[in-house]
Amino acid sequence: MFNKILIANRGEIALRIIRTCKEMGINTVAVYSTADQDSLHVKFADEAVCIGPPPSKESYLKIPSILAAAEITNAEAIHPGYGFLSENAEFSKICEEHDLKFIGASPDSIARMGDKAVAKDTMIKNGVPVVPGSDGEVDSYEEAKEICKDIGYPLIIKASAGGGGRGMRIVEEESKLKQAWDTCRNEAETAFNNPAVYIEKFVTNPHHVEIQILADQHGNCIHLGERDCSLQRRHQKILEESPSPLMTPELRNEMGQAAVDAGKSVNYEGAGTVEFLVDDDLNFYFMEMNTRIQVEHPVTEEITNYDLVAEQIKAAAGLELEDKPLKMRGHAIECRINAEDPAHNFRPSAGTINVFHTPGGHSVRVDTHAYAGYKIPPHYDSMIAKLIVSAPTREDAIKRMRRALSEFIVEGIKTTIPYHLQLMDDENFQKGTFNTKYLENEFKFNPEI
Amino acid sequence: MFNKILIANRGEIALRIIRTCKEMGINTVAVYSTADQDSLHVKFADEAVCIGPPPSKESYLKIPSILAAAEITNAEAIHPGYGFLSENAEFSKICEEHDLKFIGASPDSIARMGDKAVAKDTMIKNGVPVVPGSDGEVDSYEEAKEICKDIGYPLIIKASAGGGGRGMRIVEEESKLKQAWDTCRNEAETAFNNPAVYIEKFVTNPHHVEIQILADQHGNCIHLGERDCSLQRRHQKILEESPSPLMTPELRNEMGQAAVDAGKSVNYEGAGTVEFLVDDDLNFYFMEMNTRIQVEHPVTEEITNYDLVAEQIKAAAGLELEDKPLKMRGHAIECRINAEDPAHNFRPSAGTINVFHTPGGHSVRVDTHAYAGYKIPPHYDSMIAKLIVSAPTREDAIKRMRRALSEFIVEGIKTTIPYHLQLMDDENFQKGTFNTKYLENEFKFNPEI
Repeated sequence: MFNKILIANRGEIALRIIRTCKEMGINTVAVYSTADQDSLHVKFADEAVCIGPPPSKESYLKIPSILAAAEITNAEAIHPGYGFLSENAEFSKICEEHDLKFIGASPDSIARMGDKAVAKDTMIKNGVPVVPGSDGEVDSYEEAKEICKDIGYPLIIKASAGGGGRGMRIVEEESKLKQAWDTCRNEAETAFNNPAVYIEKFVTNPHHVEIQILADQHGNCIHLGERDCSLQRRHQKILEESPSPLMTPELRNEMGQAAVDAGKSVNYEGAGTVEFLVDDDLNFYFMEMNTRIQVEHPVTEEITNYDLVAEQIKAAAGLELEDKPLKMRGHAIECRINAEDPAHNFRPSAGTINVFHTPGGHSVRVDTHAYAGYKIPPHYDSMIAKLIVSAPTREDAIKRMRRALSEFIVEGIKTTIPYHLQLMDDENFQKGTFNTKYLENEFKFNPEI
Repeated sequence: MFNKILIANRGEIALRIIRTCKEMGINTVAVYSTADQDSLHVKFADEAVCIGPPPSKESYLKIPSILAAAEITNAEAIHPGYGFLSENAEFSKICEEHDLKFIGASPDSIARMGDKAVAKDTMIKNGVPVVPGSDGEVDSYEEAKEICKDIGYPLIIKASAGGGGRGMRIVEEESKLKQAWDTCRNEAETAFNNPAVYIEKFVTNPHHVEIQILADQHGNCIHLGERDCSLQRRHQKILEESPSPLMTPELRNEMGQAAVDAGKSVNYEGAGTVEFLVDDDLNFYFMEMNTRIQVEHPVTEEITNYDLVAEQIKAAAGLELEDKPLKMRGHAIECRINAEDPAHNFRPSAGTINVFHTPGGHSVRVDTHAYAGYKIPPHYDSMIAKLIVSAPTREDAIKRMRRALSEFIVEGIKTTIPYHLQLMDDENFQKGTFNTKYLENEFKFNPEI
């Protein structure tokens, strides 16, 4: 086992990793930017090294500074957390070359999952369901017509050179294909100077359901059930839970097996997450794999009693995965508490936290780097805490979350706590009838309450 | 279900009860003494009524004031917490007479378990093991000799009028009986003006193991496993855990059944705890039954995923216990954090808490009414927080507790946190080889560390 780990991250996840290291008897090195010198991850690590000023490219993304910090402190391994360098194949490789164990996936796994086309190809070869579509670009309308018959409607025509929501047309039925085809090609030509398009099945009102996997260096790979992350705003997850309201034991087995197959297909090592789209008929399609710890990992921890960071470290140290049946207990929900003003379109709310009273009691978990007196630096993401509750049933968990949110007192800045409180009272949330479009298209936050 | 409950208590347990009421959608009324107006239980309740000044007999023990508060606020039930009026049969009866549901045992159950002689008799009649002894007072040495042969050595001769450790003689073997008998009778005569004595088996180095039970109004009674509370100072529990390090599945079944029998013998209702002494050969003997929620109930909650306060309220409302098999997951430990100075014989440390940073993260629970800026009133017990952790194994739970304790920062007063930290590193604690005498007779706290 490692004697000393450097944590190449900040905020709550850095503290999260330090906590597990402490429990495992491993010394920790925090790195920090000059903007983060008062952060808890700096206070709670055994050693701390300043690696430069904000923005991140001058510090948390600056590989030479991080390597120097590891060398100075004799760290044996680097935990990258999430974001920053966590899915940087180059960094994983450089660590390897410097005899520093990167606590995460190999450069090859990261690279193969990082390239969406390669990842999709790999999944198809390994029998993992992907969104059905054309095999690359489609050249003529006649070809398109045939392909669309095979795929079935609704479907989506996408410009190969497009992205960010531009150069796409949803086609509901065959009678509208010709017009959509022409429009999309013309737009692609005009906008991207490239008329090439490809075709995919359009998954209506999809649910975002992801499977947590664990893999060791000995070829073992298991899954720890799912997390439902369908509640999103602008592709940012807002609330995550496990189990998913739509899950059945059969579907969990199938999706779990698909996720394990995905992991094995790239010789995965450590903790990873395979994200799927699930439609209302419970068909599921591989979306992408995140080759790192996720923000929302605690809901899985509370349900399964695994410590996922400990599992990452054990896998990196070469230990073999324990062979035991998956046991899930009850229901867990996580709310991301952001320093944002939900009454004003979630604009970031910087400043100093004057009062910071976190909730407590039965099955309430708070992961945060903030505290009373903490000044939120403007350079990083706005999440200041994760509030996680668990209970025997989903209904109980919602009640517990509402109670915990009502106890969470933050003064000096605006937070998303009022938004989450209203979400707890929302009928569709309570019934579990929501998809990835729900928060943006249907749920209405009332700033007056 | 009740619409409104009055909580006739203060501190962390009042807050604990408010939390569950909130989750159940029940309105809460806090009562408080003038010394407690800034306590969190007052802030978090829906309504709060001042019931007088300290000391407790002028407020928390003053039945007319509490009844008046319940009447003013239209509360339908009273939760007494622990201590104060929680085991007062008279109060339970008065509540009944005022049409206020007392959330606890009936006057009769409380009375029968409150009188140690009646309780012991009831246990004997119901086949619950008690410490073997003479059937009341022993009149002559000859009679004593016969009884002692039956009980077996070592045994203890106790003055009927004695108490508080006075008027007792431990007898190791028969050859020493005559002298002990004479001395004890003479001492009893001199000290209490009453030579009467009785004889009991002396349980050497006993372990304190208690069983949590739940009972409804329909004759159902179940147990939720044990808590080991052997780590005590001056009969005050310091640390509690579940499972007990000495437990076996067979013994748990036997003790669990005995506890259920004890509950049934007094038609028990709600949550109760049956305390046993267990000797090194795993013989167990009924000690007493606490007819209320215990301070250490959270370790059972973390292991079993029951909300014991919710179960109390449901039982009081007449709901039937859910019939499901007992599932225990992992290991939980609770440390009582007291405002006491362990370097100076645990003398109370009053004052204002300037910094109060509670630990967080995976499977860490904090139950506290304190906060930064809170002034500890000198009138009540010194416990300021309960820190509870759980983990898959006892070894992991100890590591997690050490980590959590190391994150718990309290400034402005002295606390027992350093004591608990050293206890986590103690070899005998880690091995689970301790009994009720261990902390006072063997464990040494080093104030220099």
